[in-house]
Amino acid sequence: MITDNLIAGIPSAEGAEALQTVNPATQASLPEHFSIATDKEINAAATAAYEAWKVYKRTSGTEKARLLRTIAHEIEQLGDTLVHRVMSESGLPEGRVKGERGRTCNQLRLFADLVEEGSWVDATIDEAMPERQPLARADIRKMLVALGPVAVFTASNFPLAFSTAGGDTASALAAGCPVIVKAHPSHLGTNALIAQAISSAIEKCNLPKGIFSSLQGGIETGQLLVQHPLVKAVGFTGSYRGGKALSDLANSRPEPIPVYAEMGSNNPIFILQEKLKSDYEAIANTIANSVNLGAGQFCTNPGILVLQKSEATTAFLEALKSAFNGLQAATMLNEGIFNAFEKGKKACINAKGVELQMEGDKESGVWKGNPAFATVSARDFIENKHLQEEIFGPFTLAVIADSDQEITEVASHLQGQLTATIMGNEEELNQAEGLVDILSQKAGRVIFNGVPTGVEVCPAMHHGGPFPATSNSIFTSVGTDAIKRFARPVAFQNMPEALLPTELKTGNSLNIWRTVNGEKSRK
Amino acid sequence: MITDNLIAGIPSAEGAEALQTVNPATQASLPEHFSIATDKEINAAATAAYEAWKVYKRTSGTEKARLLRTIAHEIEQLGDTLVHRVMSESGLPEGRVKGERGRTCNQLRLFADLVEEGSWVDATIDEAMPERQPLARADIRKMLVALGPVAVFTASNFPLAFSTAGGDTASALAAGCPVIVKAHPSHLGTNALIAQAISSAIEKCNLPKGIFSSLQGGIETGQLLVQHPLVKAVGFTGSYRGGKALSDLANSRPEPIPVYAEMGSNNPIFILQEKLKSDYEAIANTIANSVNLGAGQFCTNPGILVLQKSEATTAFLEALKSAFNGLQAATMLNEGIFNAFEKGKKACINAKGVELQMEGDKESGVWKGNPAFATVSARDFIENKHLQEEIFGPFTLAVIADSDQEITEVASHLQGQLTATIMGNEEELNQAEGLVDILSQKAGRVIFNGVPTGVEVCPAMHHGGPFPATSNSIFTSVGTDAIKRFARPVAFQNMPEALLPTELKTGNSLNIWRTVNGEKSRK
Repeated sequence: MITDNLIAGIPSAEGAEALQTVNPATQASLPEHFSIATDKEINAAATAAYEAWKVYKRTSGTEKARLLRTIAHEIEQLGDTLVHRVMSESGLPEGRVKGERGRTCNQLRLFADLVEEGSWVDATIDEAMPERQPLARADIRKMLVALGPVAVFTASNFPLAFSTAGGDTASALAAGCPVIVKAHPSHLGTNALIAQAISSAIEKCNLPKGIFSSLQGGIETGQLLVQHPLVKAVGFTGSYRGGKALSDLANSRPEPIPVYAEMGSNNPIFILQEKLKSDYEAIANTIANSVNLGAGQFCTNPGILVLQKSEATTAFLEALKSAFNGLQAATMLNEGIFNAFEKGKKACINAKGVELQMEGDKESGVWKGNPAFATVSARDFIENKHLQEEIFGPFTLAVIADSDQEITEVASHLQGQLTATIMGNEEELNQAEGLVDILSQKAGRVIFNGVPTGVEVCPAMHHGGPFPATSNSIFTSVGTDAIKRFARPVAFQNMPEALLPTELKTGNSLNIWRTVNGEKSRK
Repeated sequence: MITDNLIAGIPSAEGAEALQTVNPATQASLPEHFSIATDKEINAAATAAYEAWKVYKRTSGTEKARLLRTIAHEIEQLGDTLVHRVMSESGLPEGRVKGERGRTCNQLRLFADLVEEGSWVDATIDEAMPERQPLARADIRKMLVALGPVAVFTASNFPLAFSTAGGDTASALAAGCPVIVKAHPSHLGTNALIAQAISSAIEKCNLPKGIFSSLQGGIETGQLLVQHPLVKAVGFTGSYRGGKALSDLANSRPEPIPVYAEMGSNNPIFILQEKLKSDYEAIANTIANSVNLGAGQFCTNPGILVLQKSEATTAFLEALKSAFNGLQAATMLNEGIFNAFEKGKKACINAKGVELQMEGDKESGVWKGNPAFATVSARDFIENKHLQEEIFGPFTLAVIADSDQEITEVASHLQGQLTATIMGNEEELNQAEGLVDILSQKAGRVIFNGVPTGVEVCPAMHHGGPFPATSNSIFTSVGTDAIKRFARPVAFQNMPEALLPTELKTGNSLNIWRTVNGEKSRK
C-alpha cells in the first residue's frame, strides 16, 4: 500500500522510492509505504504554495482564524485513529499523546484568536505634516505582511505539537504564509492523517489549496526543499547537526532565507545550598522525574545540574540515586535516537573526571532509555567543551563546584541555552543577582524553583535562546510571538486611502491596537 | 601627526601602519595619519565592550536617554570644525553636511525619547494560574534585553547620519549594547571628531567607557572585528559585495551572529500613462533631481524607471534629457566610488539593447559624477539580470515596456528592493492593485507619487527589504524600530518580585505599555 505525498490537496506518488515507519515498542515495520517526494513533486508543492500565497497573504484575520479552528476540529475528529497511530509510531503512552493533541489544538486556537483580534500586524502610522519645516513629512504607514512559503520540518519528539499542524505550521498559516511540511521519517502515518485533516479544513474554508502540502522523504528531500527559490523561510525543531546544516544551506542560496532552528540545549539547573539543605529529597525527586519525562526526549530536558560540594550535596546525590532507582525506563522514539543516546552517554561517562553514579538495567535489543546520571568536578567540566554536547535522553550530569566562585565560572562557561534554572530560598536568591544575570545572558528563559520541562504556550513565553540553542536568539518557536518569524514590515508612503490595507486605513474599522504618531491607540 | 584609535576612551596607536584620507574635490591627501588598529587593539576594544555591557545592559532608560542627548549636544558643540572636516573628506556641500548633522542629532534624540518612555522593551506578563487544570500555570514575564557588543561599519555616503554616531550606533546604544565602530577609510578625521564627542559624553554621563570604541583600518580590520567572539551583532551600510562578505563571515563563526546589512537597491519607479500625460515635465524634473541628489550616492537613488511605450513616454524622455542637461555634476565621495560608477555605467550602456540617452560632459581627472540616463526594452531588461546591479551614482535606466502585461513582468522579475515607487493619477492607481501588490512583495517601502530619496526617521519607517537589498528583511536600519535589531527577549519564570527588572515588576512604576494576560495595558 502506497501512501501519497499531499500536494495542494492532491495525492501524489510519482517516485519509485518509499519509506516505512517502525513501531519502536515492537521494532516491527508498519505496513504502509510512504512515497518519497521527487524533485518534480517538491517543485509542484513550492509553486502551488507561491501561487496560493498571492491570495492567502491578503486573507483576513477572520478567515485565517476560521481555518486554524477548523484544522483543530478536524484533528479532534480523527479521534482514536490518530492517537493509536501516534502511539504506534512513537512509542509514547496514550496519556501523553492525548495531552499533546490537546496542546496542538489549543495552539491552533490561540493563533486563531491572535489573528482574529488582529493587532499582531504592528500597524504603525505617521501622518503627513505638510507644513513641517524645512521639509514636509509624507504620510507613512507600515504593517507586517507574510514572508512567503514556509518549509516546516517536523520534530521527532513531538509528533503532533511540533509537527505537521504544530507551532511552526500554526504560526506560519496565521501569518499568511503557505506551509510545505517535510514530514519526519519516524511518524509518516501520523503526518498523513494530520495533512489530510489540514487539507480538508482548507477545502471547508474555501481557501487556496496550495497553502498546504506535505512531502515525505529524508535528508535529501529536506535539502531540496530548503534550496527551492520560492521557499522564503524555514522552521525546524531537531538536532544541532540538522539545524546547523539547514542554516548553512539556506545561507548558501543565491537568495539566503531565514532558518528558525530550535536545536536543543542542556538546560542547566543551579541548586543553591540553603534550599538544598531543606529540600534535597523533594528536589531530587522533581529533577529525576523531569530528566525521565518522555524518556528524556525534550529540548528542555535538564542535562546539567550545578551544585557546590557539601554535606547537603552528598545527601542530595544519594537521594537522586534513589529517585533514579525508582524511575521506569521508557521506549525511545526510534532506533537512531536510542543509539545516539547510548553513544552520547558512553562518551560522557568516559570523559576525564566523569563518574557514573547510577544507570538503570538494560534489556538488550530493546530501545529503552535507561535513566542515568553522573558527576564531574567543575574544573573538569569547564575544561571539556564536549561535556556541553546535548545527550538527548534521560541523562543528567551533576557538576560539583568547590566554591561559589567556581559556580559562577561554570555559569560563565556555558554555551547558549533554551533555559537555565536556579533553585534557592528567598534569601539566597536575593543574593544571587550575579548568577541570575549570567544565566539571563546565556538563556532564553530563566526559571526559579521549577524544572525546565513543560513549556507554556502563551504570549510571555520565549522558547529560544542564544546559539547553539537556536539559530536566531531574537525569535521564539512557542507562544504567540512565534508568528513574528514569518512576517516582515512593509511601509506605504502616501498610499491613497482606497488602496491601504484595512489594518492601515484611517478609520481603524478592525479596532486593532496601532501606533499613531508615536502613541499607542485603538481609535 | 598620528591620530589614534579610541579604545574605551583611551587613545591608542600601537600599529606601524596608518591611513590618510583624501579631499575628493582636490584629490589631495589630508595631513593626518590614522593608525590602523592591531589585533591586540581590536581585542582590547571587544573585551572592554563586553565588560561594559555587563553594566550597561542594565542601565536605565533615563540614563541611556541622557547619554544619547549628551552625544547630540557634544556633536553640535564641534561646530564648524566638524562641518569643514566632513566637507573636506567627502566633497559634500555645506548645506548637505549641516542637514545631515541635524538628522544625526535628531536621530540620537529620537532614540533618547524612545528609551526614556520605555515601552520598546515589549514587556509581556502572563500571571500565574495556580488553580488551572490539568496543570497550574507558572508566572511568566518577558522583555527585550541587550544582545551584547555591536560592531558598526560606517557608511561612505553618510559621514554622519549612518556613521560613527549614526542610526546603528544610536539604536545599539539605546538598546543597551556597547558599540565598536569600524570607521570608513574615507572619513577618518570626521570619525575621530565624533568618536571624541561620544567618549566625552560617556564621561560626562559617568557611564562605563567600554561602551564605545572607534577603530581605524580597512577590510581586514573589519573582518577581524566581525570574527571576534565577544562581538554579538553587526550593523553595516554599504555595497552588496561588502555586506554579503560580512554576512558570510559572520555565519561561518563558531557562534554565528546576525549581520544587519543594508546593501543597496535599484529603487524602481513605475510611471503610469495618464499621470505621465498630464505631468511629464514635472515628473522628469523631479526624477532627474532625485537621481542627481548627493551625486546619486544614496541607497534610495532611483536607478530604474519603468514606463510603457507611448507618445507621452517619448515626450517624457525628451523632457528627461532637458532636465538631465540642466543638472550639475557633483564631486563623488572618493576615487573608488567614482571609478565604480564609471565602470558600472559603461557596463550597463554596453549591455544588449541599452541605449545611452544623455551623459554630462566629463572633465578628465576629476571625480565628478556626470549625470546620465539610458533606455532599454522591457524584454532586454528581463533577460539580463546584470541590469539590476546597483550603479551607485547619478544614473538611471528607463525600461520601456510594450504593454501593461510587460510592465507586470518587469515588476515580477525585480530582485528585492529597499523601495519601489508608483506614479499615477487617482483612477489608474485604483486600478493598479496588482502592480502595487507585486511591488509590496519586492520592496520594504512602497511610495506613491513621490521619489524614494529622503528617508524619514520615524516609527512607521521601514528602511529594509528583501535580499539583496538587505541581509534580513524583517528589520529596519532607520526609524525607532531599528533598536529591535540589537535586543532579544528573555522570559523569567516564577522570578521573585524583588529580582524582577523594573519593567516587569507588578507595579509598573515606569508606566510603560505592557501586555498583561494578553491585554495591552499601562496599569
